[in-house]
Amino acid sequence: MTTAKRDTYTPETLLSVAVRVFNERGYDGTSMEHLSKAAGISKSSIYHHVSGKEELLRRAVSRALDGLFGILDEPGAGRGKAVEQVEYVTRRTVEVLIAELPYVTLLLRVRGNTATERWAMERRREFDHKVADLLKAAAAEGDLRADVDIRLATRLLFGMINSLVEWYRPHPDAAEREQLAETVVHLAFDGLRTAR
Amino acid sequence: MTTAKRDTYTPETLLSVAVRVFNERGYDGTSMEHLSKAAGISKSSIYHHVSGKEELLRRAVSRALDGLFGILDEPGAGRGKAVEQVEYVTRRTVEVLIAELPYVTLLLRVRGNTATERWAMERRREFDHKVADLLKAAAAEGDLRADVDIRLATRLLFGMINSLVEWYRPHPDAAEREQLAETVVHLAFDGLRTAR
Repeated sequence: MTTAKRDTYTPETLLSVAVRVFNERGYDGTSMEHLSKAAGISKSSIYHHVSGKEELLRRAVSRALDGLFGILDEPGAGRGKAVEQVEYVTRRTVEVLIAELPYVTLLLRVRGNTATERWAMERRREFDHKVADLLKAAAAEGDLRADVDIRLATRLLFGMINSLVEWYRPHPDAAEREQLAETVVHLAFDGLRTAR
Repeated sequence: MTTAKRDTYTPETLLSVAVRVFNERGYDGTSMEHLSKAAGISKSSIYHHVSGKEELLRRAVSRALDGLFGILDEPGAGRGKAVEQVEYVTRRTVEVLIAELPYVTLLLRVRGNTATERWAMERRREFDHKVADLLKAAAAEGDLRADVDIRLATRLLFGMINSLVEWYRPHPDAAEREQLAETVVHLAFDGLRTAR
């Protein structure tokens, strides 16, 4: 029975179960026993696929990080004025967050008790710094308000984007997802208010 | 010894210890034993002040909620155009969040397993709705961009404001705190970008 079930498991499906359990119980609060029960396979079957829960964490946050860093290599992130690039990266960050919601949720919740968690936090900060650099460049080109501190603006921008993992529920309508990304860009760069 | 310590304890100091422990361990993960150790007094001494940990939670989130709802009664929240009122409320929400940081942090983290938690979440939603109503009024007066969904804007605005509990560290400089509140208002209502 266990053998039959194990054969139907792929590293990919095991990963999606693990991410769900990590998000529900917290990474620290998740044991191999919990993963085994949630996946419906024995612990030894899990060890057949991965070395342990830290490897599952690493794979899960890597998927989120690959999605985010991939944005920076897209043509829209390197073309035109810096302000256009940073608007593009903001829009795509929202889209990646929605597309990889459980993985990005996990990434945003890791707190640094293991080497993998610290590595994930470090990579996440690296991404934030890349966006801060784009904001700095946009300010230097005169396209951002001079009275806003860039470090603070970066934190507020990511605060707004990352809050999505708390309230966003997957929506089947692609137009709705696009609308969400557009609204974030509008709010952050043009503000809610009509021109004064 | 225990008696002497108990005498120096006030409900106020016990509350501040409890809030720290709740924020560190989570409300669910905190026992009376943890509170007793953190406060350095016996459990029976704690019961001298309060009926249990749920009363401490209720007092703590009440302090945050009183701070937030108090804003709505201030003259600035009822004077002038709706857009000015909502800008005022946004600025003051940031200031209250900073002034009552551990209490608001706890309020934002409660998840609804007990009656007190569900009550706190309900009151928090009520506050969000009041702000959404102001945003709607501002849109009706033509002062908000017509292409932004108000429900979504409210969530993103609070997403940005509430993210402060994750990264803000108390700053002794009042000017710095004011600057932070101003930046949130500027970003949300005017956007980061200079006029196109």
